[in-house]
Amino acid sequence: MKKLIVVAFALAAGLNASAQQALFASQDIKSAEVNKDNTVTFRFQSKTAKTVQIAGDFAKVAEKNPVGGMVGTGLVNMKKENDSVWVYTSPKLESELYSYMFVVDGVVTHDPNHPYIFRDFGTLSEYFIVGNGRAELYMVKDVAHGTLSRRWMYSDMLQIDRRLNVYTPAGYEANPNKKYPVLYLLHGSGGDENEWVGFGRTCQILDNLIAQGKAEPMIVVMPNGHPGLHAAPGESTWGLYKPFHTKVYSGDGTFETHFAEIMKFVESEYRTINDKQHRAIAGLSMGGGHTNTISRLYRNTFDYVGLFSAGMMRSNRSPFYKDMDKMLEQQVKDGVKLYWIGCGTEDFLYNSVKDHMKVLDKLGQKYTFRESSDGHVWKNWRIYLSEFAPLLFK
Amino acid sequence: MKKLIVVAFALAAGLNASAQQALFASQDIKSAEVNKDNTVTFRFQSKTAKTVQIAGDFAKVAEKNPVGGMVGTGLVNMKKENDSVWVYTSPKLESELYSYMFVVDGVVTHDPNHPYIFRDFGTLSEYFIVGNGRAELYMVKDVAHGTLSRRWMYSDMLQIDRRLNVYTPAGYEANPNKKYPVLYLLHGSGGDENEWVGFGRTCQILDNLIAQGKAEPMIVVMPNGHPGLHAAPGESTWGLYKPFHTKVYSGDGTFETHFAEIMKFVESEYRTINDKQHRAIAGLSMGGGHTNTISRLYRNTFDYVGLFSAGMMRSNRSPFYKDMDKMLEQQVKDGVKLYWIGCGTEDFLYNSVKDHMKVLDKLGQKYTFRESSDGHVWKNWRIYLSEFAPLLFK
Repeated sequence: MKKLIVVAFALAAGLNASAQQALFASQDIKSAEVNKDNTVTFRFQSKTAKTVQIAGDFAKVAEKNPVGGMVGTGLVNMKKENDSVWVYTSPKLESELYSYMFVVDGVVTHDPNHPYIFRDFGTLSEYFIVGNGRAELYMVKDVAHGTLSRRWMYSDMLQIDRRLNVYTPAGYEANPNKKYPVLYLLHGSGGDENEWVGFGRTCQILDNLIAQGKAEPMIVVMPNGHPGLHAAPGESTWGLYKPFHTKVYSGDGTFETHFAEIMKFVESEYRTINDKQHRAIAGLSMGGGHTNTISRLYRNTFDYVGLFSAGMMRSNRSPFYKDMDKMLEQQVKDGVKLYWIGCGTEDFLYNSVKDHMKVLDKLGQKYTFRESSDGHVWKNWRIYLSEFAPLLFK
Repeated sequence: MKKLIVVAFALAAGLNASAQQALFASQDIKSAEVNKDNTVTFRFQSKTAKTVQIAGDFAKVAEKNPVGGMVGTGLVNMKKENDSVWVYTSPKLESELYSYMFVVDGVVTHDPNHPYIFRDFGTLSEYFIVGNGRAELYMVKDVAHGTLSRRWMYSDMLQIDRRLNVYTPAGYEANPNKKYPVLYLLHGSGGDENEWVGFGRTCQILDNLIAQGKAEPMIVVMPNGHPGLHAAPGESTWGLYKPFHTKVYSGDGTFETHFAEIMKFVESEYRTINDKQHRAIAGLSMGGGHTNTISRLYRNTFDYVGLFSAGMMRSNRSPFYKDMDKMLEQQVKDGVKLYWIGCGTEDFLYNSVKDHMKVLDKLGQKYTFRESSDGHVWKNWRIYLSEFAPLLFK
């Protein structure tokens, strides 16, 4: 809101743009500043603070956990450089998208000079991107951009409106007679339809891969995987509730059954190629579980299946899942062109994913296994999408 | 990220949803909780804090300004209710969308139990909505919802890709032969194409007004009004830069000239009714100034003109504006069906807006003047949109 006063001064006095800029910059410091050598400098202005620290996944040394359970988060100390500016410069970082928060005298807070935040379930984190490597794919580049549409559809089955995000590639509107293949991209149990758009960087990854000629132009559909919810927290009739307080996970086949409505909606509203060869489905964690079941349940529907750190839900005792083993046998008989599995070696689901691979081995189903480092984290899912998307529809 | 560990436990142990919920809720408190009587209860958990305060526009008593210039911000003290939870309950509040931040031992921070944030220029604020009044329009209701499309267009004039947000009303996709009127809705000098979507609540206001039969179904186009920018901060090739450091305001007619390209794009990409009777333009602050000039520059193009707390830029000496007085005379001769002006009595632009009304009086141009309380704030612009939209295309 500060700007309003500033704009008042600027307009009233007829100030030029650089004078406005000086007025706006009440804190004339940059943070987080990604330097050319892939080090990152953080700055925080405070005359009175006694300690300023940074909690972040970039910090390799996780000395202590200030925010109650962040995975892979370390804590580093900033140093007061003059009477008011605290500074920390990281070592050279691997090209990646990172998250962080400041901890000022023990209070977790955001960086007032870096208003870039994603919400992941109930937690907000600031993020920055270090380039010169794979994370260049996660940046907005000077390439043709697709459209992101925030759609609503009515579900006859659930009798509610439900939201989904749809990415259509550059050229979709300009080529009204062209039809496109579709990737259904499913989120995890703490997520919603916005998660692949936010931390997942789906629009940037697809824009860039398509512009580089590495991926086919495709439609990417990101539905909300919780059939009890209308939309992401804050975007439904439930209002601005605390995400913790929702019953988020169904696990009884409701989403898998409802998925037929999502496909029907997409194939009637978008110019899709409606055959197995032009349909892909992938998801992370719970969405990987959904991918596993949906790709069996809808027979001969998907030629491309991607399980990203998938929750295989083999212990699920819901009656809905009782014929799943038979359905997998049938799926293998019918044929799947690409069965792609990604998992981090430190992922708590690693063994369960390996068990699934043994089942596939027995059935003679070929698959690609992408073993990565780290655990159940967005870093891996962005990597998986970046590697999976180029393999589709070729 | 915390959820990731939690999900691990939950999946591994086969916990049910309510057990998951308890795990997720490491802080089992709600904040900000809007109570049925329109009071609002804030809660913050800290055993070690010495003072916890709330800075917010709901606090009528602006004792002190903790964050360096927030307009209309007051500061209230929270009280420790047991050994760790600080609580404050507000008086009954007028129905409105409010912003707030916590101040913990002097450190401005966000509410860890309320992950709902808008970015306004370089500042993030949490928000909540008090209903039972006009702000019901700002909530997602159980009505048919329109689509928000995040589009990119290429500008031949500026030789860059530029972003715009386009709202199409419910039924747009289902009625492929129907054409719609268009409202161009412009942001202020600190804003971007996302501002009317965020603090402006445009999608909710239009969904609700249309569902109530109070507004005609219309397309709403929200372009980026800074011709030097490709897109909102963080969504362009400029990366995650500090918004303060950009030269944001042109003031030389570039945006007004470029606007022809925006209209051309919209009218070729969407099913618009391309005549004066079905085109409206409105904007706030700088966008009100743009509305003022664009509605003159493009002769006989707009039958509906809305100046919301408009920056009239009468002192602008750019050669582009030299014939503006003559153009206004012509605009009046040609006729404008609705000339709507809104301004708050405490707005720093109030006198300048009144001066413009005197000019209109001299020319014999009728107008509606909506004088509201308060100053140059989003509260007023949401009210103006809520009152302006129902008057269009009738």
